[in-house]
Amino acid sequence: MRKVAISSYATTEFLKNSNSSIFELACKPCIDILKNSKLPKKQLDAVLFSTCSEEQYSASILCELLGIKPKISHRIDNLCNSGSNAVVSAFSYISSGLCDYALVVGAEKATSPGNKLVWDITRGIFTLPVYWAAIFAKAHMRKYGTTEEQMGMVSVRNHMNARKNPTALFKEVITLRDVMQSRKIVDPIKLLDCSCSCDGSSAVLLVSEDKAKELTDNPVWIKGIGQQTTSASFSKMTYDLTTIGTAQVAARDAFNMSKINPRKIDVAELHDAFTILEILAYEDLYFVEKGQGGKFVNQHEIAINPRGGILGCGHPVGTTGVAQIAEVTAQLSENAGRRQVKGCKTGLTHNLAAAGTSATVIILGV
Amino acid sequence: MRKVAISSYATTEFLKNSNSSIFELACKPCIDILKNSKLPKKQLDAVLFSTCSEEQYSASILCELLGIKPKISHRIDNLCNSGSNAVVSAFSYISSGLCDYALVVGAEKATSPGNKLVWDITRGIFTLPVYWAAIFAKAHMRKYGTTEEQMGMVSVRNHMNARKNPTALFKEVITLRDVMQSRKIVDPIKLLDCSCSCDGSSAVLLVSEDKAKELTDNPVWIKGIGQQTTSASFSKMTYDLTTIGTAQVAARDAFNMSKINPRKIDVAELHDAFTILEILAYEDLYFVEKGQGGKFVNQHEIAINPRGGILGCGHPVGTTGVAQIAEVTAQLSENAGRRQVKGCKTGLTHNLAAAGTSATVIILGV
Repeated sequence: MRKVAISSYATTEFLKNSNSSIFELACKPCIDILKNSKLPKKQLDAVLFSTCSEEQYSASILCELLGIKPKISHRIDNLCNSGSNAVVSAFSYISSGLCDYALVVGAEKATSPGNKLVWDITRGIFTLPVYWAAIFAKAHMRKYGTTEEQMGMVSVRNHMNARKNPTALFKEVITLRDVMQSRKIVDPIKLLDCSCSCDGSSAVLLVSEDKAKELTDNPVWIKGIGQQTTSASFSKMTYDLTTIGTAQVAARDAFNMSKINPRKIDVAELHDAFTILEILAYEDLYFVEKGQGGKFVNQHEIAINPRGGILGCGHPVGTTGVAQIAEVTAQLSENAGRRQVKGCKTGLTHNLAAAGTSATVIILGV
Repeated sequence: MRKVAISSYATTEFLKNSNSSIFELACKPCIDILKNSKLPKKQLDAVLFSTCSEEQYSASILCELLGIKPKISHRIDNLCNSGSNAVVSAFSYISSGLCDYALVVGAEKATSPGNKLVWDITRGIFTLPVYWAAIFAKAHMRKYGTTEEQMGMVSVRNHMNARKNPTALFKEVITLRDVMQSRKIVDPIKLLDCSCSCDGSSAVLLVSEDKAKELTDNPVWIKGIGQQTTSASFSKMTYDLTTIGTAQVAARDAFNMSKINPRKIDVAELHDAFTILEILAYEDLYFVEKGQGGKFVNQHEIAINPRGGILGCGHPVGTTGVAQIAEVTAQLSENAGRRQVKGCKTGLTHNLAAAGTSATVIILGV
């Protein structure tokens, strides 16, 4: 298996309404990468476009707008983990030897049709994601004594981190009191336990080992990959409402592939679309024993969601997985500015879709 | 690079209106493959769904309906060559070592939004594909003396071949006179020079070298891959209206990778969405000298479009690339029934999108 590195990355500012088209959004981080990287456009082998937007042939349109003529270009969609699916696909193109340079682009509008899984009629009228988040939260509270305050602290910390991230949607400090007093959406989930759809885009450039050395002195390597899909419907995804089984399998496979122990992770971008999901992630990723997630919120061993996570940055669905990889790459290459985590060598991204019916875990290292 | 084989395939009957949903269509060939293959469902690593249909999260929905829980599942779209993009992606997952078994599924309804590239405003009011086909045809006629009769013979032969294919949309014999007297759409393209959107689905199972031996005694190997995208707009795709430049590059790369000479191809599925495209393909794939395509129509060295091509089978856009691979696999494994080409060892698929602004060429062999 050929080694694959990430040599460049860029993320736009996430906004409630950017007044930009999906293609304007998608072009921005690519232009940054092409400007800042030593890579001539004509060497790009692949452009993979991650979006839930319905435009047809959108990867080729993006190529035309950017003046890129790659071998491979297509769109990839899988709701909220479209982005990490696209990163893994680019990894395999390079690792197999078919490509040397692959640009992965995520872009989404707040109005994306990917925000609602209309197919999942097993939920009856409870179509919004907040309903299943509430079920997970209630189950975890009942079984393990997790508290609303612990969940609230996830939101407080991720909003705090977002203040140091110039591309994040939210810039305000929020307190635990703010979270607890925010409007209750579905018991026990309150407004500030929830992430928010928005406009935003991000891109990362993946390169083969040989070429990485030409482009950067500090390549960040993709060391482990795990993915799992069980279903599309919430009702079929789990036998245990306190665990995201897909994430457990994905984490196990990613740690096995990388030969890295969960305790060696320095920095992690976790899929905190709702606060409870971050607490479940601590357990599913083997950071703590099952049931101890609530108490892990205030630990200082692993830097969690330094960009602000989905809660602080906003959630442009097709973009999120790419933006997570961009952030961990920034951290590991010590280019994260005011939010730099000191001395981090190993990072992880955790990206879910549709109530955790599919999950991707990617481990990166220097 | 690990070798990758195709061990199973299935194609549904293509129909003008099947009364089936996109998911019913997509499931059918998968059920056939799962029934006829020795592969237990739980070993499937990847399900890649090729379609231009707008349903979100459709690959995971398909997995749930089939009771498959793969590592990787997502949708891939790139208009008319979505299917071969998905096959190449599956190849890279296996070749890289991330997967051993990948199911590629193409499905489309005749009403697919992929039938019209609304983005390409450079064509003004001439949005339908037949306009660019007419330009290619006129240019080739003017420069090389290609005739309407030569184009017509492409349609006659492919409709003739389709009669032996139980899954083809068209079952009628047509004569050159029928083509020449059919309604003129855009000079010189007549109705019977054009393919037809329809409902249809196809699936192929790709496997790693080790696993291929467990599943089949006669694996068909993917030996060469070439892909190229230049743009999304007709007006930016070519400097020469008598050549599909993307297909030339894709063919060159596929022949180089496979170390197979164009003259060694025994059977080819060519992208005959319009008759002129098949004539251009002969030249772009180096079967004949530039300009000689018109005269190549009646040759007998290479079996062209034995399933009936797109003209005879119909064109469910996201399905076509998969169905081409299924046909060449059937031929090379000597399972093509009444339409079996005798003694064929090496085959090729040629799949275009959007006026040839992107192209994929795949070479298969036993």
